[in-house]
Amino acid sequence: SHPSLPRSLSFHLANKLCSSTLLSTLLYDLFLASLTAHPSLRAAVVADLLAARARDPACVGFSHCLLNYKGFLAIQAHRVAHVLWAQNRRPLALALQSRVADVFAVDIHPAAVVGKAILLDHATGVVIGETAVVGDNVSILHHVTLGGTGKAVGDRHPKIGDGVLIGAGATILGNVMIGAGAKIGAGSVVLIDVPARSTAVGNPARLIGGRKGDSDKDEDMPGESMDHTSFIRQWSDYTI
Amino acid sequence: SHPSLPRSLSFHLANKLCSSTLLSTLLYDLFLASLTAHPSLRAAVVADLLAARARDPACVGFSHCLLNYKGFLAIQAHRVAHVLWAQNRRPLALALQSRVADVFAVDIHPAAVVGKAILLDHATGVVIGETAVVGDNVSILHHVTLGGTGKAVGDRHPKIGDGVLIGAGATILGNVMIGAGAKIGAGSVVLIDVPARSTAVGNPARLIGGRKGDSDKDEDMPGESMDHTSFIRQWSDYTI
Amino acid sequence: SHPSLPRSLSFHLANKLCSSTLLSTLLYDLFLASLTAHPSLRAAVVADLLAARARDPACVGFSHCLLNYKGFLAIQAHRVAHVLWAQNRRPLALALQSRVADVFAVDIHPAAVVGKAILLDHATGVVIGETAVVGDNVSILHHVTLGGTGKAVGDRHPKIGDGVLIGAGATILGNVMIGAGAKIGAGSVVLIDVPARSTAVGNPARLIGGRKGDSDKDEDMPGESMDHTSFIRQWSDYTI
Amino acid sequence: SHPSLPRSLSFHLANKLCSSTLLSTLLYDLFLASLTAHPSLRAAVVADLLAARARDPACVGFSHCLLNYKGFLAIQAHRVAHVLWAQNRRPLALALQSRVADVFAVDIHPAAVVGKAILLDHATGVVIGETAVVGDNVSILHHVTLGGTGKAVGDRHPKIGDGVLIGAGATILGNVMIGAGAKIGAGSVVLIDVPARSTAVGNPARLIGGRKGDSDKDEDMPGESMDHTSFIRQWSDYTI
Amino acid sequence: SHPSLPRSLSFHLANKLCSSTLLSTLLYDLFLASLTAHPSLRAAVVADLLAARARDPACVGFSHCLLNYKGFLAIQAHRVAHVLWAQNRRPLALALQSRVADVFAVDIHPAAVVGKAILLDHATGVVIGETAVVGDNVSILHHVTLGGTGKAVGDRHPKIGDGVLIGAGATILGNVMIGAGAKIGAGSVVLIDVPARSTAVGNPARLIGGRKGDSDKDEDMPGESMDHTSFIRQWSDYTI
Amino acid sequence: SHPSLPRSLSFHLANKLCSSTLLSTLLYDLFLASLTAHPSLRAAVVADLLAARARDPACVGFSHCLLNYKGFLAIQAHRVAHVLWAQNRRPLALALQSRVADVFAVDIHPAAVVGKAILLDHATGVVIGETAVVGDNVSILHHVTLGGTGKAVGDRHPKIGDGVLIGAGATILGNVMIGAGAKIGAGSVVLIDVPARSTAVGNPARLIGGRKGDSDKDEDMPGESMDHTSFIRQWSDYTI
Repeated sequence: SHPSLPRSLSFHLANKLCSSTLLSTLLYDLFLASLTAHPSLRAAVVADLLAARARDPACVGFSHCLLNYKGFLAIQAHRVAHVLWAQNRRPLALALQSRVADVFAVDIHPAAVVGKAILLDHATGVVIGETAVVGDNVSILHHVTLGGTGKAVGDRHPKIGDGVLIGAGATILGNVMIGAGAKIGAGSVVLIDVPARSTAVGNPARLIGGRKGDSDKDEDMPGESMDHTSFIRQWSDYTI
Repeated sequence: SHPSLPRSLSFHLANKLCSSTLLSTLLYDLFLASLTAHPSLRAAVVADLLAARARDPACVGFSHCLLNYKGFLAIQAHRVAHVLWAQNRRPLALALQSRVADVFAVDIHPAAVVGKAILLDHATGVVIGETAVVGDNVSILHHVTLGGTGKAVGDRHPKIGDGVLIGAGATILGNVMIGAGAKIGAGSVVLIDVPARSTAVGNPARLIGGRKGDSDKDEDMPGESMDHTSFIRQWSDYTI
Repeated sequence: SHPSLPRSLSFHLANKLCSSTLLSTLLYDLFLASLTAHPSLRAAVVADLLAARARDPACVGFSHCLLNYKGFLAIQAHRVAHVLWAQNRRPLALALQSRVADVFAVDIHPAAVVGKAILLDHATGVVIGETAVVGDNVSILHHVTLGGTGKAVGDRHPKIGDGVLIGAGATILGNVMIGAGAKIGAGSVVLIDVPARSTAVGNPARLIGGRKGDSDKDEDMPGESMDHTSFIRQWSDYTI
Repeated sequence: SHPSLPRSLSFHLANKLCSSTLLSTLLYDLFLASLTAHPSLRAAVVADLLAARARDPACVGFSHCLLNYKGFLAIQAHRVAHVLWAQNRRPLALALQSRVADVFAVDIHPAAVVGKAILLDHATGVVIGETAVVGDNVSILHHVTLGGTGKAVGDRHPKIGDGVLIGAGATILGNVMIGAGAKIGAGSVVLIDVPARSTAVGNPARLIGGRKGDSDKDEDMPGESMDHTSFIRQWSDYTI
Repeated sequence: SHPSLPRSLSFHLANKLCSSTLLSTLLYDLFLASLTAHPSLRAAVVADLLAARARDPACVGFSHCLLNYKGFLAIQAHRVAHVLWAQNRRPLALALQSRVADVFAVDIHPAAVVGKAILLDHATGVVIGETAVVGDNVSILHHVTLGGTGKAVGDRHPKIGDGVLIGAGATILGNVMIGAGAKIGAGSVVLIDVPARSTAVGNPARLIGGRKGDSDKDEDMPGESMDHTSFIRQWSDYTI
Repeated sequence: SHPSLPRSLSFHLANKLCSSTLLSTLLYDLFLASLTAHPSLRAAVVADLLAARARDPACVGFSHCLLNYKGFLAIQAHRVAHVLWAQNRRPLALALQSRVADVFAVDIHPAAVVGKAILLDHATGVVIGETAVVGDNVSILHHVTLGGTGKAVGDRHPKIGDGVLIGAGATILGNVMIGAGAKIGAGSVVLIDVPARSTAVGNPARLIGGRKGDSDKDEDMPGESMDHTSFIRQWSDYTI
């Protein structure tokens, strides 16, 4: 009885996120109303599904992603929380953030701006702060932090360009810019800007050179190619 | 119908942590009884609320913290588990620890000693071992481990001084001492004592110099000032 | 009314993992049927219990582990998911993986091959990919990733030998071999093969020498001895 | 977030009737879709609310009825089940009937035809069979049965005219006609037609005379006037 | 952890009556607060337990009654709803009435005045209206109605004297007086006053003579003696 | 994953009857163990299914009955409670009785002896006492009471012969014998023995003559033929 994607997604998210104070019926209503009212939200859902299918070899189909990927589900819940935040329904937006943090262990502030065609792979432990901005076609592995640097209010979180790939456990802190098509190695701690199409690895992170060419073709975007291989090759070179 | 803080907190924690074997009514009763019997527990709750409000720019009010901060809630559940442990009601204390680890992904052994005015920011993945001691006015980011170093029973976990700030993903292992007012950089792996008011970064961690002055004023305590900024500046210097 | 270990375990797992779409009765039936049909599964459960008791000084008894250790429970759920995967009941296997990832924040692909006498200590954030293989007598701390390196289908995850110890937050990526009895330091990022009985630490990881002797005795296996002490000593030497 | 009556009613019914196999989100969706698609359903809901308010002195307001009256809620659930039955979605219609029978102890076959402005007062134990027809402005007390008379398929249940009042515990069996404006005394067992505007009492029921006048004014309709008083007076006369 | 009767009863009632909008923690708190504040409530609970033990041969102990008797539990929930009604917390009182009607199929208006040492045996289907008064030492079987007679507001429900026994399925309508020590036969429909120590049977009910003596001794009170036997003998005589 | 009838029934009953203290996994285990151990139980389940299909024109199939008929489900739960009672597991048997009384509003004492091929039609409000005995091929409508007559322990409930039909709302009290093939009219109050193949109607009940012939053929058994028609004809004659 849930023929369309917005209904299926709302149904599934509501059942996963409901609690004694956020009833599933209320959440279903909320998700469905947001998805119905905002075509851009629906487009982003589709783009995220296509991204998971294209980039994750373990993804065996759209329904597998829709039903089982906590990263996908956490992003969609964030998209709705972001709409609520923009509507100044902040207590509900924050309650939704909190519930996603409990259920999926993914903590994205509702004010954070997130693009489309995003893959949150495995997703456990991802933290994205209030003033962070994430571009399109970005892939973020688990345990990644886009965090702040103090207790001052204001613009204090990273800006992630289009097509960026951020490896597992990477920590990016402060209002730094990660340029389009950059790669951040697993476990890196990044406190500085990273130029477009370059690679940063290590703790603290160092840049290990850009890549040949300056094409904007999709296959060159690590957020889409998930090209850890070349990244690892580069790093292995570096580690010798 | 829950006018006072102990009742609100007990009510909220019970509903978040209840399971098929730990009924919410039982948990409510347990939390309320502990908070009623121990004024020091109530004082610590208030101190933690004030700490979250003062140190986290994303915290929009006490009720936001009380309702939505898994780190705050996990610490309060630990305080009750610690009381149970001291009363030799160990199976219940361990069941509570386990339930907090499931619901909030925060794993604090009930025997661990935790001070007051603690901020567990984001909190996912925090692990604090059996013989760890955490002082007052400490701020601990997500994915932080205060772990042991082997299978021998005994005092085997870190001791964290007052006013310490521990960055996201830091791993501190063994019965080491982190001195008052020290800073531990994000992603650091610390296996050695860190002197008071000094900073440790990297994997493995290295000390990168103390700070000017030796004042005990609050603003100098990184656990309270959340002064990642200077920390990052220091580290950035170091990384050049 | 649950006298035997398989019944107790099935009962407990079913109540922890049930959801609105995976009813506890269905899960109980599924777990009990798998444990009854596969003696090797039952043997692995017992071996894991004994491993937790022997290696974790905070483990106060078998029932404590059975009731409260999310790592132990996550591994047992994986064992059943793995059976389902082998029976080509893949949607159910993937749903179970997803549910374990939500409830325990442990994400193990059902196709991954996991040996016996495994300790997943604390367990939050562990990710083990589709083509990973884990030997016997292995101890894995929390936040450990055995991950892939791109979007190509195929054998792309680590192979962990018998008796390996992997410290908290270590990230091992790609189809690399971690030899029997090796140690991987906390927070390490490993992209290369690690020879048997050697130790790798750092980000990126470097080898810091083997160990004296070549005995196969249990006490020499770090996965069993949990000998972080010598490991830390070695690393501390290295860090000077 | 449920401004309109259909949403409030769907929300409330879904939360009351949900079970492990009829999720609240599914029910909410189902109720809201039916109420949205059928204006006559919405009109009947309003008429029933007005009827409860007008006829039941214990009804303190519309929201009291909407939230708390199991008879009102059971009728609305039946209206939706009846739509499902007409759409040939019979297993779902029967599941809904069964769930209403469990939760409210009101058992109305989805094929039964029920008019508008119906009051099911107290409602526990009401049974209405497959081929029963209930007119408009009818009031039915608790424990009332509109039942069949054998195991033959076919038209075998009572037909209740407009404005009828059926007292608590009355049992009406077989394809009999209860004429418009008739009264059936509490505890009566009725196996015969009852003429319009007449009164039947006793076990087995006997007719105890009609009423003066033949006006069609509302105040003359016992289903609306709830005029047990005159009914009792008549009966008391009869019992002497 | 629930040593005293008020705590056990509050715990048990809260778990039985909780719903998505009446959380068990809230109910527990409510029941415990009422029982703690009103010694007469606690005395009535004890008197009801003693009554069930003394009068119901199927009652095998106090805990059996406390855990399993829906009539006992429904009465205690009513006592709390009655306190709420007197405190002018009417929406909550009505919500509690409604929930008891759903869960136990016992519908007692919170304004109804109910004495102590009451046995509601089996209890399903009992309805007691807003202005009804029930004395002490009364036994009421299942399907009994103490109902009203129209839609006028005002004193319109029966008054039941001390020591009355009301048989299964009896319907008593209107502001009639059932005198102390009277018996009402099963299935009776009573629309008239019944003198003290007399017996009414049939539909409509007729008086079938008083009893010898006018003692006030307990053994003469049918509400306590549960003396259906003599009642049946009398009636059998009558039926010849 | 529940191929056989015992598994399906156990699964379904467990999900319907589970509560915070009777977990569904425990109930599933209990039902499945009883059904597996007692072939006569399984035979009775099948006989009851066949009876519902044959006698209830509204029954559209076995799965409809298995899923939705509260009378069928209540009887099966009673069969298991009866086994527990015989095994001297009385607290569990009584808890199960109580839970069935809450969920289905059917209250059958676990000691009551119930035959096979039983139809409890609609079922709400049925009460069957501790020493009652019900034969085979009996049909019992809703609101039927097989009750006791006082507070003395001992054999005090009705004995219902094979093939009896008991109409809605009938109340049978005391250790009376209802002979094989008898019919009890709806709403009757029966305090006396009823001979085989005769009919009793009214309050108090009177016998209204036997039936022609004395065949034991099934079609003559009202419990199987559900022949209310002739019963009504007889009664209608009687009422003139």
